[in-house]
Parts: sequence; C-alpha cells; structure tokens
Amino acid sequence: MNTPADPFLDPLATPFNDPGLPQGSRLRVGAGAGRSNQLAERYALRIQQGLAAPGSRLPSVRECARQHGVSPSTVVAAYDQLQARGLVEARSQRGFFVRAPRRTEEGSAPRALAQRSPPVDATALIRGMFATASDRPGPGSGLLPPDWLDATLLQRALRRACSQADVGLRYGEPAGDPDLRQQLSQRLADLGIDAAPRQIVTTTGATHALDIIARAWLQPGDAVLIDEPGWAVEFARLSALGMRLLPVPRGPLGPDLAAMAQLAALHRPKLYVTVSVLHNPTGCSLPLAAAHQVLRLAEAHDFAIVEDDTYAWFAPNHAPRLAALDGLRRTIYVSGFSKILAPNWRVGYLAAPEAWVDRLIDTKMISSLTTPALTEQAVAWCLEQGLLRRHAERVQDRLDTARSGTMRLAEQAGCRPVTPPRGLFGWIDTGLDTDRLAELLLDEGWLLAPGSLFLAVRRPSPFMRINFATSQDPRFWRAFEAARIALQR
Amino acid sequence: MNTPADPFLDPLATPFNDPGLPQGSRLRVGAGAGRSNQLAERYALRIQQGLAAPGSRLPSVRECARQHGVSPSTVVAAYDQLQARGLVEARSQRGFFVRAPRRTEEGSAPRALAQRSPPVDATALIRGMFATASDRPGPGSGLLPPDWLDATLLQRALRRACSQADVGLRYGEPAGDPDLRQQLSQRLADLGIDAAPRQIVTTTGATHALDIIARAWLQPGDAVLIDEPGWAVEFARLSALGMRLLPVPRGPLGPDLAAMAQLAALHRPKLYVTVSVLHNPTGCSLPLAAAHQVLRLAEAHDFAIVEDDTYAWFAPNHAPRLAALDGLRRTIYVSGFSKILAPNWRVGYLAAPEAWVDRLIDTKMISSLTTPALTEQAVAWCLEQGLLRRHAERVQDRLDTARSGTMRLAEQAGCRPVTPPRGLFGWIDTGLDTDRLAELLLDEGWLLAPGSLFLAVRRPSPFMRINFATSQDPRFWRAFEAARIALQR
Repeated sequence: MNTPADPFLDPLATPFNDPGLPQGSRLRVGAGAGRSNQLAERYALRIQQGLAAPGSRLPSVRECARQHGVSPSTVVAAYDQLQARGLVEARSQRGFFVRAPRRTEEGSAPRALAQRSPPVDATALIRGMFATASDRPGPGSGLLPPDWLDATLLQRALRRACSQADVGLRYGEPAGDPDLRQQLSQRLADLGIDAAPRQIVTTTGATHALDIIARAWLQPGDAVLIDEPGWAVEFARLSALGMRLLPVPRGPLGPDLAAMAQLAALHRPKLYVTVSVLHNPTGCSLPLAAAHQVLRLAEAHDFAIVEDDTYAWFAPNHAPRLAALDGLRRTIYVSGFSKILAPNWRVGYLAAPEAWVDRLIDTKMISSLTTPALTEQAVAWCLEQGLLRRHAERVQDRLDTARSGTMRLAEQAGCRPVTPPRGLFGWIDTGLDTDRLAELLLDEGWLLAPGSLFLAVRRPSPFMRINFATSQDPRFWRAFEAARIALQR
Repeated sequence: MNTPADPFLDPLATPFNDPGLPQGSRLRVGAGAGRSNQLAERYALRIQQGLAAPGSRLPSVRECARQHGVSPSTVVAAYDQLQARGLVEARSQRGFFVRAPRRTEEGSAPRALAQRSPPVDATALIRGMFATASDRPGPGSGLLPPDWLDATLLQRALRRACSQADVGLRYGEPAGDPDLRQQLSQRLADLGIDAAPRQIVTTTGATHALDIIARAWLQPGDAVLIDEPGWAVEFARLSALGMRLLPVPRGPLGPDLAAMAQLAALHRPKLYVTVSVLHNPTGCSLPLAAAHQVLRLAEAHDFAIVEDDTYAWFAPNHAPRLAALDGLRRTIYVSGFSKILAPNWRVGYLAAPEAWVDRLIDTKMISSLTTPALTEQAVAWCLEQGLLRRHAERVQDRLDTARSGTMRLAEQAGCRPVTPPRGLFGWIDTGLDTDRLAELLLDEGWLLAPGSLFLAVRRPSPFMRINFATSQDPRFWRAFEAARIALQR
C-alpha cells in the first residue's frame, strides 16, 4: 500500500471516481479538439490533486494513444495544453515530465482547473450564506431554520448565566470556562472519547478551533490531507495559511484509502482534516473498518488527524469517532454548538492529547486571548440539565420527516441522491452544471450550494448540497425545473 | 531621510537609546574581555534590530578601536564573537560583513540576543497574567482590578441584550452587529475619525482585530515595523505568522523617525503596528508633529499603519490619532472594550479604508465565521446611553489618584519613571535586572512585567511595567525592597 502506483499508467482506471464528475463518466466521443481537451483535463486534475509527483514521467504519446483509443495527434495536443498551462515540461529525447507546482499568490493551493473560472465566487457564496436580509429559507443554507431552534431554552440559559457573579470582569481562563470543560468531558465520554477537562480548550465556534490547530501545527508549505468533496471554508483557510491541499476522494465508504496512502507517501502530510460523522456535504459517516485503516495510515506515515464533528448532535452517540478509536493519541477532536443550539453564540471546543494542549492554548491566546464565559456558561447549563440532549432528539425526529419530504421533491424534479440521505445535508446529482444553476436561481432569490464549492480544485460539478430542513418549499423545486429547462435549451 | 546612514560608523552615537539599557549608559570601564563582550553586544543588537543590512561592512579594526577608545585586540575579540554567533562573516583581505539572518524555527523573529536565555519565559508570564486563582492584585497585570469595573452596568446591559428577539438563532452579519457598528461610527467621530458603519468590522477583542489584519495583509517573510518597547503578545503573534520584526525605538517623543526611515529603506516593510495613544508600556502618546512625520514616512515607503488604540478610554478624545490625521486612507484603526468595560466580553473592532473591508471580513470568517451579537448589543447600549463615557470619566479620576500614590511608593523604593507617568501603566527604572527580580517576587506571589517582556529582541532590562491601579499595596513595595537587597548581595 505504501508503494505508489505509476500515476499515469492508466489515469482512467483509477481506483476512485472524480467527485466532480457523474459516476462512471468516460471520455465522451466527439471531435479531436474536444477529446484532447478532455484528456488534458483528466491529466491536469491528477497532477493538481497531487497524485502525480513532480518529476514523474507521462506515458509516451504512443502508449497514451493506445490506452485511450485516440489518435497520437490528440495526445500531442493534450500534452501541449498541459505544457502551456505549466503543469508538465518536455525534456529533449525523453518525453514529458510533471513540473513542481507553482505557488499562487494566496499560498500554494492548486490553481483552479477549469479553464473558464467558475461563475459563482466561493467567497461571495459563503458571504451570501450568512446574509440575514432574506427570510426565504435557502436550500444551500448550512444551518437549521431559526424556528427549529429553541429560543426559549436559549433565553433561559442566558438569563441564568447573566445572574452569575462574574459577568466578564476578568479575562477568564485561557483554556475556557471550567464548568463547560467539565460538562464537555462528560459529553465526550458519552461518545466513547476519554478526555479530561484539562485536555479541552474552548473556542469561538468550531471554525476557530480548526484555525487554531492549523496555526499551531503547520508551517506554510506543509501538505494537508483533506476530504474531497469537503467544506469550502476549510479549503480557503488552509490555502490562506499557505498549505498544500491534498484532496482525498471521499465516498460512502469513507476516504479512498489507496489514494490516501499514495498521497501520504508522495507528500508526507502533517495533518488529515476530516468530518468523520455525517460528512459535509455527502452525509456519510466513516465505517468502523475504514476508521481503523485511517488510523493505521496515520501511524505509518506519522500524520496527525483533526476530526471535525460539527454535526455530532444529528448522529447517534454510537457512530464511531476516530478520537474514540485512537484514544485521543494522534487525533484532535473538534465540535461546537452552532448547528444544534445557537449559531451566533460562537461556542466551540477542541479536545487534544494532553502534551499538545499548552501549544494550542498559546495559539488561542495570540489569536483572541480568551473566549466569553457568558455563552460558555449558558451551554454548560444546557448540557448539565439534559436540555440540549432532549432538544437534539426532537430535531432529529423532525429532520427525519423533512428528509423524506425533501428527497421526494428532489426526485420528482429529476435529481438523484449521490449518497444515502442522512443528517442535515443531501448530496444530490442534478445532471446539470450546478454553477450555472446557482447563478440562475440566485437571480430569483434562491441560494444554492453548487458542487464546485466543495471541491478543493474548483471545477464544474453536476452535484449540489441541499439542506433537508430548508428545501421543502415546492416553489423552489418549481424554480429548479424552470432553470433546468433554460439550461438545457 | 531616505538615505540610510552607515550603520557602523559609530554605533554608540546613534540618535536613540537602547530601550533595554538605562539611558546614557556607555561601555563600562573594565577588563578587556568585559569590554569586548559589551562591544559585541552593541553591534549584535544593531544587526538583530535590522539596522545594519546584510552585506554591509563593519568598520576596520583600527577605526573601531579609535572610535571606542579600546585596544585593537578588544575589537578583534568582539568581531570574533560576532562571527562565532553567525552574525558577521570575515572576507579575506576585505574585513567583516553582516550576514543574512538565519531563520528560526518559529518564523523569522530575530533570535534572542542575551547569551543566557531569559529566566522568565514570555509565554508563561503571559499565561500567568491571565491566571484567576490569585486574588492578590499583580503589579504586572494588564487590567483594571475587577472592583474598578461597573458590574451593575454590565448586568443591566446584558439583561437588556438577552431580551432582544434574536438570541443567537442565526449566524449574524459577517461584519458584526449593525447597532454596534452604528454606535462605533459615532464614537470614532468623537475622536475625529470619519468612519461609516460599513468601514467597521467587529472582532473577538482587539487582539483578534490585530490578528485578522496581519493575516489579511502579510505573507510569511514580510517585514513589519513595531514599537520597541512594545507588547509581547503582538511580537509573539507576528513571529508565529513568520514575519520579520523591525523594532523601532519608541520614546516620549514617539518612534525614532531616523531609525524608522532607515529600516523602511533597508527592509521595505508592509506594515507599521503601533499604539499611538498611551503606548504600552511607556504611557506616552504620539505628539501631533511626530504623527505627521510617521504618515509621511508611510507614504514615502508605501507601508500601511495599524493603530492599536486599546487604551483609548483612559485618554482624552482630543489626543491625536493617526487614523484621524490620515483620514483612514492607509491606516487601520483597532480598539476594544476589555480595558474599560468587560475584559471577558471579548468585544473589539477595526475601522479600515472602505476598499480593504471585504478582505478583512473574509479573513474574519475563515478564522471564526461571525462574532456574538449578544455582547455586541450590550456594548452598543452602553455607548448609546452615554453610560460608558461616564464610567470612563470616573475611572480616569480614580486612576489619577492611584497614579500619584503608586509613583510615590515606587520612588520611595528607589525607582524612577523612565517616561512621564500617564494612563494605566508606568514604565519605571528599577536599576536591577528585572528578569531576576520577577523570578524572585513570583515565588512570593507577586506577578511582575519585566522589561524584557516588551523587547522584540529579548534581553535583560532594568525597566519594568507597573499597573498604577494594582501597585498600591505597600506589602508589594516591601517585598520589592527585600528582593533588591537579595539581588545586590
């Protein structure tokens, strides 16, 4: 498993699917120029995903033509394109070789593959997801609708926290509110994770925890394994910090282990950042056997794991967590309360091996000193009283109903689930270019989350993520069908 | 001003004082080895502060001996020391030249100069400053004592904010609570700074604002001008981000403009980060004429300015702000409410030129998404009702009294102010090695802030920062005198 296969021997017979393409898609029959474009795209993707190491040799023109059943001139045209894009170089009498990646200005993220830049800008879309102006529920939203949350519970918890003696007169403990860390230690025990309060650090939401870990652990230029599809904010953060992203295809059975082994051997990553339970956007949870293999790879290649359990409260406690299996030895666990309790309270946390905690606290302090005890006390009370658990059970029941209803509407509109529908998000195949779809529907006030948003190497995708709770409006699906007709004209 | 002077022509006749040494100190008379050590230290400091560019030539042995009135063998011994420390290199027949700095593992901060490492670790000291276990007021504390703050006001403001309709059910606006940004726009107008609400972004305390700006503006390896003495957390953050720190000596008349011009010409910094009003630790405010010159330098050398106005509420509104003078064109203004209202609420903000705002918001989002509206609403109410202004006036009166009392005790204990006592902090000369003093007094439960903590190039210092509000206990000064006797034995 540690000996990487020749990445160019047959790029179409890879052991995994490109998450940006419909499953089973092959080079389409067409004109020579079309075929050479497609061939160049496939090779470029493998290079930019890090699966072909700098310096490795491309197959000879004749060999490549034979493998793909195209003419040598199609291959020559494809290789020329790759050379023009700076991805490969010709060496006299010896053939074509993969070049070392060029650094982009924002760090070393792979440059977008698509020759046309995606019409929907990731940052603008993410900002749009946070817009509060519209009251129309967005199918692309990352949150439960406000009326699914328990405003009364939040009011009670806050009032109680406000009446505590200390209302913010000191900085507070660098690691976070002691009562909350005590409650979180209990909560983690319910998930099978053995973490003492001193191993827990509170943060300004799970996003801040992920940010702290990356800053404490990585130096610019370090390689990081990430799931693809995955979450755009994670890609953007790691890229802005100057990391090299190594996308690992993620499917219903977890990350592609062969690809992960190959990337680890080629690039010596320091970290693997993953959502193991109810993965965003696919909704899949890591099977126990895959979790075991991921830990074995982490040990063999000596990388640490960041387990982002943002959707923890939508899943049963017995869903296997890497941190539980690993005994929190080389895994840092991250979670928060934005999805289930109160998005704007910004309460998150991490649990880490004890020897790593001081370094993480120091990084928290240089980024924001401490975190507010007020909302941390409020969360602690919700946990202590069992009120959060009961609220989460009610939400899960309601989400089960919403999921069936939304999937029925989606399938009536000609979509099919790419992965089995679970949790908050559906990952569905529209058969359309979802960048263009998102653009059309945004004009009508519907915010979508197109598949390209979840790809580390941005490229058009027929998939999109829908929020089961906010996609039940038949008006949206009517608008979707109208857009489909417009796109297919 | 743009032509840097030969940095080695006479390093003892520099136009500014080394903030780590008592003013007016000269090479002390002593044995040859002692004098060569002192000479080597002086040269090393100039090199590590970036005032002597890599490649520049040291004076000849004879010339240097003549300048300093020492024997040529003393100079040879000093140059040998510099060579052994990797700071200079000998080139055959041509003399000694400054080497390019070696990168340290944590980025490219200059390595500590002192041959013995300081006994007090900066990170441990900073963590100690946040310890809540002890109720004894620490002379090194960065905050007002809790009983100086208005707990009743905080309770009222929070209760009012809790009763607002939205208690955290949405993420909230990426730029921050609109009501608070409206109030801050008013507050800035009172300081002479014209900033529309859309130019203001709220943050998790001022520290988070400084962090966001550094991340949005800088790439690892970039040079940043900072005040020295200055605040250790700022040095630690910039170093951790991989920046090259360029310390500018800061005195009662502001930053040393000649040194700033020289550093700017040599290193092309992207940013100057400064506390212009009630500077930490000296308490000095930037005179208007110096502010004008700083802006001229920023324009000539095309660097941006980050004005950290953390101590704004202890100063009169008419104290000149760079952001006011500049019309917020190349200045980003940063402030917060930890020092005057509620340290643990973690409410801070920045105001920036309009064209820079989106980039800053995007960086805020990748670090923590949004900030809690609850405490932002509470601050907005305190501002709107004029309650914060009245509270700040009371604190200023009380601080005036504490300042006289504390300075009387300090002077009775043999200390003298390095700069005129103003605001929250005093910068005082103890005549002792304050690292060793801090170590001795920590054993007795007194937390000090030794001068070395405020130096970007860590080295022992006879100065320390005292908090006027928390240094009024005669028991502390008795312990101080006992420590002085122990150190002088």
